[in-house]
Formats: sequence, C-alpha cells, structure tokens
Amino acid sequence: MTDIELRVAELAAGVEPVDREAETAARERHEQLTKPSGSLGGLEALGVRLAAIAGRCPPPVPRAPVVVVAAGDHGVLAQGVSPWPQEVTAAMVAGIAGGRAAVNVLAGVVGAQVIVLDVGVAAALPPHPRVRRAKVRQGTDDLSERPAMTREEAARAVLAGAAVAGELLEAGADLLVTGDMGIANTTPAACLVAVFSGRPAAAVTGRGTGIDDATLAVKVKVVEQALALHAPEPADPLGVLAAVGGLEHAALTGLLLAGAAARVPVLLDGVNADAAALAARAFAPRAVGYLIAGHRSVEPGATAALAALGLDPLVDLGMRLGEGTGALLAVPIVRAAAALLSGMATFAEAGIGG
Amino acid sequence: MTDIELRVAELAAGVEPVDREAETAARERHEQLTKPSGSLGGLEALGVRLAAIAGRCPPPVPRAPVVVVAAGDHGVLAQGVSPWPQEVTAAMVAGIAGGRAAVNVLAGVVGAQVIVLDVGVAAALPPHPRVRRAKVRQGTDDLSERPAMTREEAARAVLAGAAVAGELLEAGADLLVTGDMGIANTTPAACLVAVFSGRPAAAVTGRGTGIDDATLAVKVKVVEQALALHAPEPADPLGVLAAVGGLEHAALTGLLLAGAAARVPVLLDGVNADAAALAARAFAPRAVGYLIAGHRSVEPGATAALAALGLDPLVDLGMRLGEGTGALLAVPIVRAAAALLSGMATFAEAGIGG
Repeated sequence: MTDIELRVAELAAGVEPVDREAETAARERHEQLTKPSGSLGGLEALGVRLAAIAGRCPPPVPRAPVVVVAAGDHGVLAQGVSPWPQEVTAAMVAGIAGGRAAVNVLAGVVGAQVIVLDVGVAAALPPHPRVRRAKVRQGTDDLSERPAMTREEAARAVLAGAAVAGELLEAGADLLVTGDMGIANTTPAACLVAVFSGRPAAAVTGRGTGIDDATLAVKVKVVEQALALHAPEPADPLGVLAAVGGLEHAALTGLLLAGAAARVPVLLDGVNADAAALAARAFAPRAVGYLIAGHRSVEPGATAALAALGLDPLVDLGMRLGEGTGALLAVPIVRAAAALLSGMATFAEAGIGG
Repeated sequence: MTDIELRVAELAAGVEPVDREAETAARERHEQLTKPSGSLGGLEALGVRLAAIAGRCPPPVPRAPVVVVAAGDHGVLAQGVSPWPQEVTAAMVAGIAGGRAAVNVLAGVVGAQVIVLDVGVAAALPPHPRVRRAKVRQGTDDLSERPAMTREEAARAVLAGAAVAGELLEAGADLLVTGDMGIANTTPAACLVAVFSGRPAAAVTGRGTGIDDATLAVKVKVVEQALALHAPEPADPLGVLAAVGGLEHAALTGLLLAGAAARVPVLLDGVNADAAALAARAFAPRAVGYLIAGHRSVEPGATAALAALGLDPLVDLGMRLGEGTGALLAVPIVRAAAALLSGMATFAEAGIGG
C-alpha cells in the first residue's frame, strides 16, 4: 500500500460506531414528550439517529451547515452522454462563486454556507473566496476506454474532500451537506452505483440533466462498456473510484468519511452523493450511521443507492438538479428533529397524566 | 339567509381566481434560469403557484409566517373514539401558550409565530398573549346523536377564523399556516372528508393519536352513524359543518377563505386542515388555488382529501401529530420556491448559451 493509500485507510479506520446508548436515550425521551407515541413519524426516527451520531441526547441543533460543492469534469463526455459542453462546469462554478446559482439561493433560505471544492474542473478557475483549490487533475479520462484516473489520483481526491471537511469542522461547521457540479457526472455515478449495489447498468442509469431516449441508450451502453472493461471489484473502493468514478465522487467520499469520523451528520444530496456514500461504506461500513439522505433524486441510481444503504430520504420533490439543492431543503428538517428532543416539554412537566 | 350567514357568503364571494398571467410569467422564467429545464421538479411547480397566488412574478418570499392553532372540543368523545380525556385539549393549549409543545419548537426552527385560536375549548382558558379568545361554545354536541352545533354557531366559528386571519395579515403576516388542537377532532374531520369527497367512512377514518383496532371500529361506526343520521348535503357547507364538523374545522375554513381572499398562500397541515379545505372549496371553489398542502398526514382522510382537492403534499414523513407541525416543516420549502424565482441568475446573465 502506498503512503497516500495508507492515509485513506487511516481516514476510514477513524470512523467509530454510532452511540447506541444515546440512541436509546433519544427513543425513550420521545415516549415522554407531549405528543402521542410515534406521532412525529420520520422526525422521531431522525432525532434518534442524530443522538446516535452526536453521542448525546438531546443532540445539538445544527446552527452552521456548510454545503460543499465538489466540482470536476469527465472524459466520458466525449462519448455523447450529455448535450451540455464541458465549459458549462466552469461557467456554473463561476455562477456558484457569484452567488446566484440554485444552490446559493437555497443555502440562503436555510442559512447554510456554500463552498466549491475544485478537485477536477478542466479549466483554470480564477481565485475566489468561495472556491477551494485542490485540483487533482483537469478532468478524468474517458472511463469507457481506460481508467478515469490512477489510484493515487483517486486517493488524493478522497483526501482533498476529507481535508476541506476537516477545515470546515474546525471552523465550526456542525452539519456537512454534499453538493456537486460536473457535466456528465451522472455517468460515473451510475457506474459506481452499479458496482456497489450489484444492479445492472440499465436499472441505475438515468436522464441526468434531462437527456432524450437516444442519448440515454448511449449512456447505458457506455456504463455497461465501462463495467465490462474494468470489472471493478467492490471490495476495493479506491480501485472502483479510479476505474469508473469522478474526482468529485472521490472527494465526496472523503468528505463523508471525515464527517463520520468527527461524529458530525452528513446530508446527502442526489445520485452523485449517494454513489459516494456507497464508496464510503465500502471503505468504512460504520460510516453509514452518520449519513442522512436529504432527498430522493429522480435519477434511478439514487433510489437504488439509498435502498442499498438502507436510508429513507427526507424530501421527495422530483428534483434532479444536483449542486446540493435537494439536501439543503432537508436542513430545516434536521434542525427540527434535533430541536424537538431539547425543546419539547414532557408529559410530567406539562402535568398531563401518561 | 340570516345576517351572519350572509357575512360568510360575502367572505366566500371575495375569493378571486389566481392570476394566470403571473403563473405563465413564472413558468417562462423557470426556463431561463441556470439549470436544466424542469430539474427543480416540485419546487418549480410550487414557485409557479406562488406567483399565481400573489399575482406577480417573482412572488414575494414569505418572511412572516403565522401558524394559527384552532382549538375546540368534541361531544362525540363520549362515544369512546379516543382514549384521551377532554381535559387534554385545555392542557395542550396551555402547553402551546407556554411555548414548549411540538408546534412551538418547529415554529421556532422555521421562524413562524404561533397563535392559538380558542373557538371551542370546553374549559375557561386563562388569558395569554398567544391565545385569541373567540369561543363560540364550550365544545360541540355529540354529532353521532344530534347536530354538532347550530348553523349560526358554525357561521360564527367561520367568521372567527376569518377575523384572526384578517388581523394577522393586517399586522404583516405573509403566509398562513393551519394548526389544530382538539381531542377527538379526527372524528369530525373524517365525517367532513366523507361528505365532501364521497368516500365511505371506513376509507377516510384513521387512528388519530394511535387508537387500537377496537376503538377504530367504534370510530368508523360513529362516522357512519353520523352520516346516516344527518345525510349532510355537500352543496351546503355551513350545514355540513354544523351537522358533523368541529368548531376548529369551521374556524380553519374561515381562515382559508380569508387568506385566499387576501391572495396570501395558506399552508395546510393534516387531516383537520384538509377537511376544512374541502369545506372552503364548497364555499368558494377558487379558494383551492391559494392552498398548499404542507404534508401528507398518515390519516387516510388526509390522502383522500388531498386527492379530491388535487393537491400534492410537500413533505411526507409519516407524521400524525397535528398542531400545525407537518405544515411548518414545509415553510422553508415555500420560501425556497419563491426565492429561486427572484434569486437565480438567467443563462443570459451567466453567459451560458441556451
């Protein structure tokens, strides 16, 4: 194992199990609060998970969420899997830096900070306070013809994601939200979901930005070709990311592992984050306990990945934009689930007989 | 028609159609914003509705939501439809006034004000700044044996809901959120949904706070008995509310009509609000254009009512607490939908070719 691969292994080894005692305490507390048992449904289950993640009940209410938009380009675009040109990735990163993309608007509504993590945009981006520069390479190779990147590059992207998470947590972030930007990135996402979930390409490949039937047929074929060419081994997540992943998927994998290692909840956005979550689980099965599915993207790979992860999404509004938009909508729901455990009176306090 | 019934009719007549020009403008604007067409799914549809409601595009972003918790008691409790004693209604109103009920916690998370509207609690409540006193009577009669209230009482409760809405709007409220509190109130809600949707009692009657099979069987029978006894006429909503409704359902009906007449969106919580929405539609079919389904309660009557109204819920987390809790979770989603239309850059502004 190379030095850098060793560092990834150490990151994964740092993930501890969630706290079952705090989980039980939260479950018991919910029985004492002034409401019929179970009447808050998914909010109760989420509060219990947040207690298990934080290791205490009541869990802290997230005050400083940060959405990290991991950005990269994809050599596989050359196969015609998307009608959008590669330049749009850099243009949209500039838009996010400028503060008027969808992710900025939604972050403003829920009080989240927005950071772009450039691990692989195929252009030199001008410096900007919202953009962290950690470029591993200018886009991946065409995964349908050769490995998307080397193992070392994949490892560097994982560590870049972990490093930015570490910095943000150090600065006070208490909820990490995944975002992504990269024309054609739902193709590597579909590859990753197929490898880790064992589902066929056609079942996990979707229309991304809204491609037509002919383009979808090409995309499915490209995913099948990549899987046949590399025969990626799910027990070797770094190998899988290198063969058929994207730099932003690798970075998000690192972000998830770092959040989990720090016992901070991580809100997953769409299929790119869900694919990274499967990779993170392959590195560290315990990491899943720290992940919260923000929403269900319409991408079929998202549903397949969430089912494989055993996660129920909080929001399901037929969204497929990415950037972190779906996960941001779930931030107030996470706050609500935590706040109920600390803010509600018990039956005893309210003088209502059990 | 009595004077008071005339005032209800005038309230209903004040509801204008939503604005189709603003709706079209919002739909067109969504095509120009920096995202793939349709990729924000339900958020786009909601933004379009908000523009139609406000009569302008972009629609205003709600800054001052208020949840109105309409409270009342129910004579039908005597039939054994709930295991909770009637005193719990007043105790929970005191809890909401005290600020530590679930509705208060969620309102705090989303920045909403909480007001209790006492139209029918069967106890004298102490004065409190959060409680508006508009008691029509101390609880309803047993709707399975006689009309729940008189037509005049139903009309007074409708007008009480409209009056509090008017006051709040005058004071700057820009989003009305429905809430409810009343032991046994899902029984009249089931009656109302059955009458207005035409569905059988067994299909729209649920477990409320979580009753067992035996109690549910009693509840279904009570609803059937009430429908057979009164044979309420859906074209006469005041008669329906008087025969099988609750004072809080009548008040919420007035609140919905007043919000609609003022072109302000109204977020529906669970089955009690959904039942009131069906009554509001019977008074003024145009009112439906101003209603937003905050969430899908697990009560079967909620799903039946939303289907009849043609409304898709924003949140679906298996909740069944009432108080306004489900609708409050949707407040940030409403803000997001409005903010996207004003805050996002267009492709032209971002220099990205269509």
